[in-house]
Amino acid sequence: MLQPPRGTRDWLPEEAYVKRVVCERIRKVFESYGYGEVITPAFEYLDLLKAKAGEEVVKQIYCFKDKAGRELGLRFEMTTPIARIVASKPDLAKPIRFYYIQPVWRYEEPQKGRLREFWQAGIELFGVAEPEGDAEVVAATHDALLESGLEGFYISVNDRRVVEDILITSGVAPEKLSDALRILDKLDKFGEAYVVEEFERIGVPREKSSELLGKLKESSIDLELSTPSGRQGLDHLSRVVEYLKNIYGIAVDVDYSIVRGLGYYTGFVFEVKLKKYGDIGSIAGGGRYDDLVSSLGGPRLPATGMAIGIDRLLEALQLQGQLKTGYSEVDVYIVPVAKSQGAAARAVEIARMLRAGGLKVVVDITRRSLSKSLEYASKKGSRFAIVIGEREILDNTLTVRDMNKWKEYKLDVEKALGMLISSKR
Amino acid sequence: MLQPPRGTRDWLPEEAYVKRVVCERIRKVFESYGYGEVITPAFEYLDLLKAKAGEEVVKQIYCFKDKAGRELGLRFEMTTPIARIVASKPDLAKPIRFYYIQPVWRYEEPQKGRLREFWQAGIELFGVAEPEGDAEVVAATHDALLESGLEGFYISVNDRRVVEDILITSGVAPEKLSDALRILDKLDKFGEAYVVEEFERIGVPREKSSELLGKLKESSIDLELSTPSGRQGLDHLSRVVEYLKNIYGIAVDVDYSIVRGLGYYTGFVFEVKLKKYGDIGSIAGGGRYDDLVSSLGGPRLPATGMAIGIDRLLEALQLQGQLKTGYSEVDVYIVPVAKSQGAAARAVEIARMLRAGGLKVVVDITRRSLSKSLEYASKKGSRFAIVIGEREILDNTLTVRDMNKWKEYKLDVEKALGMLISSKR
Repeated sequence: MLQPPRGTRDWLPEEAYVKRVVCERIRKVFESYGYGEVITPAFEYLDLLKAKAGEEVVKQIYCFKDKAGRELGLRFEMTTPIARIVASKPDLAKPIRFYYIQPVWRYEEPQKGRLREFWQAGIELFGVAEPEGDAEVVAATHDALLESGLEGFYISVNDRRVVEDILITSGVAPEKLSDALRILDKLDKFGEAYVVEEFERIGVPREKSSELLGKLKESSIDLELSTPSGRQGLDHLSRVVEYLKNIYGIAVDVDYSIVRGLGYYTGFVFEVKLKKYGDIGSIAGGGRYDDLVSSLGGPRLPATGMAIGIDRLLEALQLQGQLKTGYSEVDVYIVPVAKSQGAAARAVEIARMLRAGGLKVVVDITRRSLSKSLEYASKKGSRFAIVIGEREILDNTLTVRDMNKWKEYKLDVEKALGMLISSKR
Repeated sequence: MLQPPRGTRDWLPEEAYVKRVVCERIRKVFESYGYGEVITPAFEYLDLLKAKAGEEVVKQIYCFKDKAGRELGLRFEMTTPIARIVASKPDLAKPIRFYYIQPVWRYEEPQKGRLREFWQAGIELFGVAEPEGDAEVVAATHDALLESGLEGFYISVNDRRVVEDILITSGVAPEKLSDALRILDKLDKFGEAYVVEEFERIGVPREKSSELLGKLKESSIDLELSTPSGRQGLDHLSRVVEYLKNIYGIAVDVDYSIVRGLGYYTGFVFEVKLKKYGDIGSIAGGGRYDDLVSSLGGPRLPATGMAIGIDRLLEALQLQGQLKTGYSEVDVYIVPVAKSQGAAARAVEIARMLRAGGLKVVVDITRRSLSKSLEYASKKGSRFAIVIGEREILDNTLTVRDMNKWKEYKLDVEKALGMLISSKR
């Protein structure tokens, strides 16, 4: 009973701090692109979550009834709740730029870099139908990941209409299209043999599947496609790629096998992976969902969004040695050794001044011996300790111990405060 | 379906920003006292949540089963999950100082300043049995509320052992004690008549109840008590009050009617209310829970904690006119009016430099007319707009419009960047 529920975790102070540092870097980039934060409830009406999620994800929703019998579910991503807000507020000036940094929940087998409760940081851009919108979302993703400290990542792009064209040309029946996309989404995870076998189940002969998989490996933007929708998708995709290259100076790879797992994508899709540590899975991904807002009852509103998987990103940054943040919970530990209330009052007074100077200060209230207190201060990583005895009170001084250098200074109160506060800068 | 579930709300960018500003001020104070952040899962095993919550709160837990049949519940506060962490990690150096800023969930009737999903910011101090621990928690609460901008609040303190003594002396049967405490917790909300009536149901005659309520109105620290536990409580309480006054310079009121709703409190309790706007309820509250960690299977570890209700605090700050934070989602809006890709590329390049300078910049990608774009920029509260046409590209200048003053400047790129970046400082 003392463990967190299966598939979840606790964040202890240093972990929470590192996560916050990384999230704040990402937040800074999102805001620098003019995105504004939104926070939605942990749960939504189940019908809303189900609306466009796709079969696979619906199975993963934690659902329950409230005491009035309403069916609710924990949000499994943030796009649907945010699309709900947009659908309910037709007066918001377009384009709308929203971002979020929040946990989401999916009941799936806990895996490397993906728990049942995991954190996402993402943006949603509503009201831009043109490739420029997709390019902006990819560029902001790129900049946010760079700012987080991530190295060695690449961005793969595709358009669902292109894959759908290829699938249909290869003999997938139109009514099996969403099944085929779901199977294809597992290509990276389970390999080609899995895809060929699953495709056979939905009526695609093995030789056709091999041909199809070959076609998906093409990386040229000049594909021969047979449907108008496919050709539209390819044209849109090529303009996103060109725009990213010429306007943002960001190179991306075309990968026709990328489909993304969520049911609501209608065109452009992309994901970010690592050149090394490929087993972490995709660090970020997203795409265009032009039908979601209207399908929830809102106006017809084109949209592109993306989410960064914070847990996976942290794991990648850890592997790349980028998480040395120099966390300390305590900067100064003050020990009033005199038993008089005067020493305690002086300690609290000194603490107040140091805190106002931006330092993290603990006043010892344990009634332990000085040596035990200093041992604790050292365990907490405190850089300095201050000892306040009768003598220090009488002559208005402080005994300051530098815990790293094992040096001790006896200083006037004012000088001591100055030294400590400037040490933090 | 477009509304958030009953009792929950969305936070749109300006609301989320204001909440974040207030939470960051509180975080700064918690950290300045040497508290480290912890983040726990949204849900816990139901048995853990039920352990010491008290009957009333247990009824309010959102509970559900996961797909393996485990009984889970959304956390209704953060103390129990944090006590779980502490119980499971006996090696953590004591005292332990943890803080959190997280949402919690309770199924109760939505009321003023209290929804079914609401945010709490709080601290937990483990390992200090003495009144100094309680005083530190109250002092940190006091400082955090001051730093948030709150005015006109007062702190009331009590010790449960004192109330229990008074209740028992007034004829409450020992086995009805927890019922009596629960009834008393409603005194402020439902008034004396309610308490008298409910007390009658648990066997306390009306005249005894009136006498009891009179006794609870005493504000002197010199009460006549009849049980050793009661006298211990009063002694502890008087030392907390004295310590707060003499060491921290913080005046608190003794109020023997305060019990706090949660089942795990064992002694000292306190709450913070507003002198005006009393109907908001308590802004913060907490107390000592010396049995919680051991009752979960951990070591015997005394503890004191508190939580600030962020939603109520925001409401109070709003009423007090303290929430003018000057939020702007966009600082500079760049409109490439030339149709060439050169103008777009120049716009993105300028945006990148301004973003690096700390500004929030949107590049127009709407293909709307200049006047429509400027209208949008104005709606978004953008302070400046930059227009980039063929001319500006050729002579390496920028046309900068000050949206407040309706003035336009044509400047060298470098000068324009300098002016814009320094405007933000």
